[in-house]
Amino acid sequence: MKRNLLLTPGPTKIPDNLCEALGRPIIHHRTPQFQENIKEAIEGLQYVFQTKNEIYLLAGSGTAAMEAAVCNVLSPGDKAITVEAGKFGERWTELCHAFNAKPEVIEVKWGTSVEAEQIKAILDRDKDIKAVFVTLHETSTGAVTDIKAIGEVVKNTNALLVVDAISGLGVIDCQTDNWHVDIVASGSHKGFMLPPGLAFVSVSDKAYKVIEKTTNARYYFDLRKSKKAFKEIDTPFTPAIGIIVALCDSLKMFKEKGLDGMFANADHLAQGTRAAAKALGLSIYTEEKYRGNVLTAINLPENIEGGKVVKILRDVHGISVAGGQGSLKGKIIRIAHMGCLTEEDTITGLTYLEQVLRELGYQFPEGAGVNAAQDYFKQHQLV
Amino acid sequence: MKRNLLLTPGPTKIPDNLCEALGRPIIHHRTPQFQENIKEAIEGLQYVFQTKNEIYLLAGSGTAAMEAAVCNVLSPGDKAITVEAGKFGERWTELCHAFNAKPEVIEVKWGTSVEAEQIKAILDRDKDIKAVFVTLHETSTGAVTDIKAIGEVVKNTNALLVVDAISGLGVIDCQTDNWHVDIVASGSHKGFMLPPGLAFVSVSDKAYKVIEKTTNARYYFDLRKSKKAFKEIDTPFTPAIGIIVALCDSLKMFKEKGLDGMFANADHLAQGTRAAAKALGLSIYTEEKYRGNVLTAINLPENIEGGKVVKILRDVHGISVAGGQGSLKGKIIRIAHMGCLTEEDTITGLTYLEQVLRELGYQFPEGAGVNAAQDYFKQHQLV
Repeated sequence: MKRNLLLTPGPTKIPDNLCEALGRPIIHHRTPQFQENIKEAIEGLQYVFQTKNEIYLLAGSGTAAMEAAVCNVLSPGDKAITVEAGKFGERWTELCHAFNAKPEVIEVKWGTSVEAEQIKAILDRDKDIKAVFVTLHETSTGAVTDIKAIGEVVKNTNALLVVDAISGLGVIDCQTDNWHVDIVASGSHKGFMLPPGLAFVSVSDKAYKVIEKTTNARYYFDLRKSKKAFKEIDTPFTPAIGIIVALCDSLKMFKEKGLDGMFANADHLAQGTRAAAKALGLSIYTEEKYRGNVLTAINLPENIEGGKVVKILRDVHGISVAGGQGSLKGKIIRIAHMGCLTEEDTITGLTYLEQVLRELGYQFPEGAGVNAAQDYFKQHQLV
Repeated sequence: MKRNLLLTPGPTKIPDNLCEALGRPIIHHRTPQFQENIKEAIEGLQYVFQTKNEIYLLAGSGTAAMEAAVCNVLSPGDKAITVEAGKFGERWTELCHAFNAKPEVIEVKWGTSVEAEQIKAILDRDKDIKAVFVTLHETSTGAVTDIKAIGEVVKNTNALLVVDAISGLGVIDCQTDNWHVDIVASGSHKGFMLPPGLAFVSVSDKAYKVIEKTTNARYYFDLRKSKKAFKEIDTPFTPAIGIIVALCDSLKMFKEKGLDGMFANADHLAQGTRAAAKALGLSIYTEEKYRGNVLTAINLPENIEGGKVVKILRDVHGISVAGGQGSLKGKIIRIAHMGCLTEEDTITGLTYLEQVLRELGYQFPEGAGVNAAQDYFKQHQLV
């Protein structure tokens, strides 16, 4: 069997124990046994979300959670703020338009993110803004948004703060309650190390009061139905049973390692990868101030086509990394550090990245990248 | 480990080879390898759907497919026909209301279904009806609708015929093209023997022309996005990778056994179960004319509480059957015949059903039900 190493920022590598959980015989969802799974999942998610808010489970991928956030808090004609700093920020804008709301779009340079002051300026001027939609970690660029600072701005207004934490949650810090985030949208296939198909939405009391009055058409994603089912330790429609059962085991891993331990692991791999990039003479796409540890976006040498790098790594060496999206197509590669990825996975990825770059004509001291990463890992051992 | 025999009409028993497929390391979805999976899945689904229409894959459970059908073909204010013959027919009505359409509801007695003539009468009188929403197999009652006859009525009008085939598809006949069904909604966790979380929607050309013009708010379930992605052998949002990979193996089982073989298996188990019920002096809830082979709904003796039967079977004997829903709560039990269920599974279920009924005070000749089923199975061997 060919190697299948996923260094992509979603889906991510699934550890063996979670593969085993996914392959177990299915159980029925209207049983005390599955209710125990729901309870365990919610409690574990509240730990990772750092919240006491209710968290609803939706059968769907990450965009399902985003749609649930939009169609439940915005009514047709409502004003909102969206931030476009990459492909996933643009999705908030698209969703607002799809549900007939009026987004005021803050466009920022890709590789950076919005400043709280920019959001404050709009909220100060326009008291009719109903919600602010931001992205914790913009997967297309690797940039992280300062949610804490934005939370300080939004909390004293009538607007809701809605955060797409799909790729960031469980990998970098997102303090839902301390940072006053009203809705956090996330999914199973990034930091949680599971297949796509299960979405999560946490909802604050402030948000729920809005949800009750929203007039946008909704049914499958109607969070009023979710809240009602939540009380009965149930879901309004057939849940993604298989993934929820495996999620309980994923969340046990989070508790064992601790959230800080998970963050530290991603940070460790990110630092090693960045040391390697530097040694190879390659720069990081994401501006330093906004750089997170979910992934490293590396600028490729000008004469090297990114699509080729991704294709050869995948088809010849069985290693999946992500290329650039949109205007970054062909220009960068993105290497993930999330979930259960290890030093070994990272070194393997870097080894073959070096090989492919060399084959494509890029020159550098042999082994420079791998050596730099290994040096970093030796000098900064994880506890 | 305690027995976990699912005789419920969804989720259904997952055969070992599909459990193995679900537990495999995940692959990335934007790869030629996964595109092969998509191609194989679509082609196999077209065989089971009996259609040449495009079939779209949505990450979501069965209701997701139903919502996609409603929000893509009805605009606010549009008129439609829905048929309420059980809990899932009612869901069509609820969805129409949620998307601000005006359903004309045909209420029929539970345990029966609508006649094509009733639909024709409305379509003849009201040329503004945009769509007719029916249920192939009403899981709450076991009744089957004559889709063929309804197709003959609807095909010559401007209305679309939309069928919820979630629990029926692959278990009983549903000839999408021959019967002129414009949209068939289904899901992974019934006849396809997989976990919930993957929904399917087949769309005719006639339906797609409507979809293009529909004004209802939609994004995640926007089938225009699905059609665009379909051309590129892709999905608009992250797909339910794990279930799609396993679906390819499920569909191989369909091809090996043949659709007729799958139908024959369900029919065989249904007849055996009904012979058992008769021998136990229990009647079938579903009226004979409308009886399908997806499940058998058995009327329980008046002095026996259905909830107890379900609970004891599950908690003591590790066998899941379904109780009654809505007004049937406590009055019936439903035993499924779909997917990979076998004579042995059925006999096991009946054996413990007998035991529980006896414990609860119901009197009958010992072993009568099991013997009758075994006799049926001996006399009607499956090829």
